[in-house]
Amino acid sequence: MTIIPSRNNRAVVLLSGGLDSSTALAWAARDRGWECYSVAFDYGQRHRIELKASARVAASLHVAEHRIMQVDLSVIGGSALTDDIAVPKDQKAGHLIPVTYVPARNLIFLSIATAMAECIHASRIIIGANIIDYSGYPDCRPKFFEAFREVARLGTRIGVDGQPFSIETPLIHLKKSEIITLGLSLGLDYSLTHSCYDPTPDGTPCGHCDSCLFRRQGFAELGRTDPLSYPD
Amino acid sequence: MTIIPSRNNRAVVLLSGGLDSSTALAWAARDRGWECYSVAFDYGQRHRIELKASARVAASLHVAEHRIMQVDLSVIGGSALTDDIAVPKDQKAGHLIPVTYVPARNLIFLSIATAMAECIHASRIIIGANIIDYSGYPDCRPKFFEAFREVARLGTRIGVDGQPFSIETPLIHLKKSEIITLGLSLGLDYSLTHSCYDPTPDGTPCGHCDSCLFRRQGFAELGRTDPLSYPD
Repeated sequence: MTIIPSRNNRAVVLLSGGLDSSTALAWAARDRGWECYSVAFDYGQRHRIELKASARVAASLHVAEHRIMQVDLSVIGGSALTDDIAVPKDQKAGHLIPVTYVPARNLIFLSIATAMAECIHASRIIIGANIIDYSGYPDCRPKFFEAFREVARLGTRIGVDGQPFSIETPLIHLKKSEIITLGLSLGLDYSLTHSCYDPTPDGTPCGHCDSCLFRRQGFAELGRTDPLSYPD
Repeated sequence: MTIIPSRNNRAVVLLSGGLDSSTALAWAARDRGWECYSVAFDYGQRHRIELKASARVAASLHVAEHRIMQVDLSVIGGSALTDDIAVPKDQKAGHLIPVTYVPARNLIFLSIATAMAECIHASRIIIGANIIDYSGYPDCRPKFFEAFREVARLGTRIGVDGQPFSIETPLIHLKKSEIITLGLSLGLDYSLTHSCYDPTPDGTPCGHCDSCLFRRQGFAELGRTDPLSYPD
């Protein structure tokens, strides 16, 4: 007999500890009221300090459980975030794929999140992906997430059992300033987050990589002060 | 400008060191003549000894490179292969999902292989999946592999660049005895492989788990001697 569980309150949330994923978690936990299981990935990123931010943010939003999964993508390489390639400064990503793109990262992270969702019978995975700022990343496109939902259902017990399942991308069409507005409205403390791709060893953001530039511009557009300190 | 590489000779091969994946590698390397990059996964499996078999088989078939990737699925659990659940003995898998199914394993492994394929510009991933013996595993179904190919193209540079890309499942419709016949015809040395889900610490196969039973029956049907020794 196949057991078909009803849609439940449980969500797996990809949480890097950055501005976007932290806002996505705040939305899932506080706007939707879902029981959240967050997961961060220790994948060989040079900004590994973000893992500490992910734990801080998870605690502040009272997740049911926060896990840090090990999967060493630096042995695969091909990215400025994991490989011996310089992080570009003071130049925003255009429509070409930027060097900070990590090969198949969202595919890998969503696959692991799917395994977790399958085990805890979560009905959804939340990912803070965004196509406004990161138009060059192929794994941030809505059609990728739609296709992923189908392959995840086909390749797991989720589909066999007829378990409800969705990939939620609440930030997909928001500008950075709109993301920040959403997070602030939900009481998210952005001082806990970390966005820089190339921080100093103590976690001070560089202020000039893609990720820092987008973040600073988002706060500036709103006339708000970014709670993080930058060297200039 | 988008560069569209032509279909090349390169393949990423998922190689656990078991009978099926070793035969798939032999097919890719010797029948197709592809330049093979094999990858094994250290995922917290109780039969971790298979990693040694994967390295032996890779060397015997002269792969261009063999990698062992770490991704600890035991923290996710939900399977007799990674969790504190007994491996069933002397009972073959039926059409229900067996407890030796590891949640989303092929999805995760194929995703990591996709990242490798993207980086080395391989045109294909080879996986020794089979639906005859493992009809209960959702991630061994042809429609799963077809869907995976699409999501992998959508979520990576592979699709953006228009790179040719396929998921090859040469064993998908073969019986175990046919798989063995194929491997023997290609000169594969099955004494190098490891199939047991629940071996002793020195690697002696139990002889009674699903995987041992299918293997033994395959050799028996052919009237061939399995080069591995079993305790009974």
